[in-house]
Amino acid sequence: MSLLDYFRKSKKSTASLAKERLQIIVAHERQNRLSPDYLPQLKQDILEVIAKYVKVSEDKVSVEFEQNDDLAVLELNVTLPDYK
Amino acid sequence: MSLLDYFRKSKKSTASLAKERLQIIVAHERQNRLSPDYLPQLKQDILEVIAKYVKVSEDKVSVEFEQNDDLAVLELNVTLPDYK
Repeated sequence: MSLLDYFRKSKKSTASLAKERLQIIVAHERQNRLSPDYLPQLKQDILEVIAKYVKVSEDKVSVEFEQNDDLAVLELNVTLPDYK
Repeated sequence: MSLLDYFRKSKKSTASLAKERLQIIVAHERQNRLSPDYLPQLKQDILEVIAKYVKVSEDKVSVEFEQNDDLAVLELNVTLPDYK
């Protein structure tokens, strides 16, 4: 399954809302635990970068973080203002 | 299927390489074509943010971009230096 398929599928379930949406996923495969973990700071930086392009209110951002031994996945979901 | 599962699955196929890896995906659901398309510039900004944390050589970055009418997906794959 390609990533486009993945998002297209997840989009369908929320299609009725027809909102402008931005989703950012950062996945970090760590070879071992010695490697630095900078995802939390990276999250903040990416949010600041996005804010350069769109007006994002903090209550429109949801953040999820999943982690196991060698894989960390950070997911940001941003609901954007409507363009009409 | 959760995103963690998605990445865990895609990781398996490359596990023998055991490389440190960073994958960034930006998905933009556009409500209509009037909304601005800033993904190309956003890509550049995100790469610069990552460079703050890890030394990334350009030949270690692969970029894929898929788009249809109302969904644009940008995928960055970065192979990181080893930590040993």
